[in-house]
Amino acid sequence: MLESRSPITVRYAETDMMGIVYHGNYLPWFEVGRTTLLKECGLPYKDLEAQGYRLPVIELGTKFFKPALYDDTVTVITRLKERPLLRIHLEYEVRRGEELLVTGFTTHAFINMTGEPVRPPAFFTETMRALFK
Amino acid sequence: MLESRSPITVRYAETDMMGIVYHGNYLPWFEVGRTTLLKECGLPYKDLEAQGYRLPVIELGTKFFKPALYDDTVTVITRLKERPLLRIHLEYEVRRGEELLVTGFTTHAFINMTGEPVRPPAFFTETMRALFK
Amino acid sequence: MLESRSPITVRYAETDMMGIVYHGNYLPWFEVGRTTLLKECGLPYKDLEAQGYRLPVIELGTKFFKPALYDDTVTVITRLKERPLLRIHLEYEVRRGEELLVTGFTTHAFINMTGEPVRPPAFFTETMRALFK
Amino acid sequence: MLESRSPITVRYAETDMMGIVYHGNYLPWFEVGRTTLLKECGLPYKDLEAQGYRLPVIELGTKFFKPALYDDTVTVITRLKERPLLRIHLEYEVRRGEELLVTGFTTHAFINMTGEPVRPPAFFTETMRALFK
Repeated sequence: MLESRSPITVRYAETDMMGIVYHGNYLPWFEVGRTTLLKECGLPYKDLEAQGYRLPVIELGTKFFKPALYDDTVTVITRLKERPLLRIHLEYEVRRGEELLVTGFTTHAFINMTGEPVRPPAFFTETMRALFK
Repeated sequence: MLESRSPITVRYAETDMMGIVYHGNYLPWFEVGRTTLLKECGLPYKDLEAQGYRLPVIELGTKFFKPALYDDTVTVITRLKERPLLRIHLEYEVRRGEELLVTGFTTHAFINMTGEPVRPPAFFTETMRALFK
Repeated sequence: MLESRSPITVRYAETDMMGIVYHGNYLPWFEVGRTTLLKECGLPYKDLEAQGYRLPVIELGTKFFKPALYDDTVTVITRLKERPLLRIHLEYEVRRGEELLVTGFTTHAFINMTGEPVRPPAFFTETMRALFK
Repeated sequence: MLESRSPITVRYAETDMMGIVYHGNYLPWFEVGRTTLLKECGLPYKDLEAQGYRLPVIELGTKFFKPALYDDTVTVITRLKERPLLRIHLEYEVRRGEELLVTGFTTHAFINMTGEPVRPPAFFTETMRALFK
């Protein structure tokens, strides 16, 4: 299993009139989490795009246990539990210290620049094979 | 079953560098959908808050089939399939004409202004009972 | 002078913990305003991009007099006061009924798909010349 | 003059279909900048709100010279050039290394929890007096 941790400090812009982080604003945090994880794997998402691949979200889910508040520093923990084949399935936890606030997942498919589903590039597959050995 | 339809025209701000609507930006559209549905039920969310109730999202899920694009006018179809008791479960479809782009759901709990779970107010329960008769 | 009016209903997502619309969230509304104005001029921005032109914001300013609130329906009034030559300068008002909430402006330059400044296309110049006659 | 520096890594969510950061998404970065500056002054904005004060933006302006791109790490430099009396005027630069991307300012007024303009609290005034001595 691969895991990465990304600290995030809550912006005022991310709160809503309930006084807490708007539920939709956790999704960019998950994105920060997987950007970090892919970078730590030596597979920056920016490079994947530069080589003609994109990884759109095809499914996601989120559960909200406790709200994050303005100026909190939280940690997004991102986990890749299984070696990705055609799809990438990532799991997320948002924690404030040890306290669990939110969990979620995203599933991604590889597409090319014209939007057609494609197999992941060889360098991606090889790197993942090595990391999951 | 209660159902409402909300037209939405995609803003440039809602797109990302993939050239499509960013996946997280469908959640405010779902919110527009349920705001419309509650208003059409005679239970505007604004009034619920004015009376001390809030309906935070406690779980959500989304599947992405085809992307919405800048300046598309799409329809958010929001459905309340069962009479809500302690929780409200809403289902959503985003369509461009007949074409299905995205589906999703949100589940909400009633809380009071200090964040504690509470039973829905009588006027809410009565209205829902009447609508689902 | 060209003028267009766009109604907008405030989303919960657009509020912040101050209980009002977050100041940065008026900018997508200005964008809705100019999208409407350009469409009403017969020059949809989508078509400009399809033909290889982009109109990034190079300067903007905003003054905030009164806050817009959740579920308000406001009107964005967009004005093009002078025939655009190399740049487009647009002015905006956000009103709730007659009440003035926010004013602002954006200035845009024409660039091509590789980001270089270019002259506006002939069809744009001709249309504007006709509209400002 | 007080000055603070905040590093920010560009999120995919912050880009638009032009392939660059959406112009409105620099405003939350300015907000990160002033949150940092106030915290470094010993006057966290969170504490100001906890004591019944709010600092809404009453005017802002921004100039865009070069775009920030996905995954760039930029620095927001926030400057308070003069001791604030009734209003706070902050200036911002967004730089990628030495390269200047965006400049801007925000002006803020003190209001109380019911939205009326008020004088800044004594602890704020005293701290600023000391910092600008």
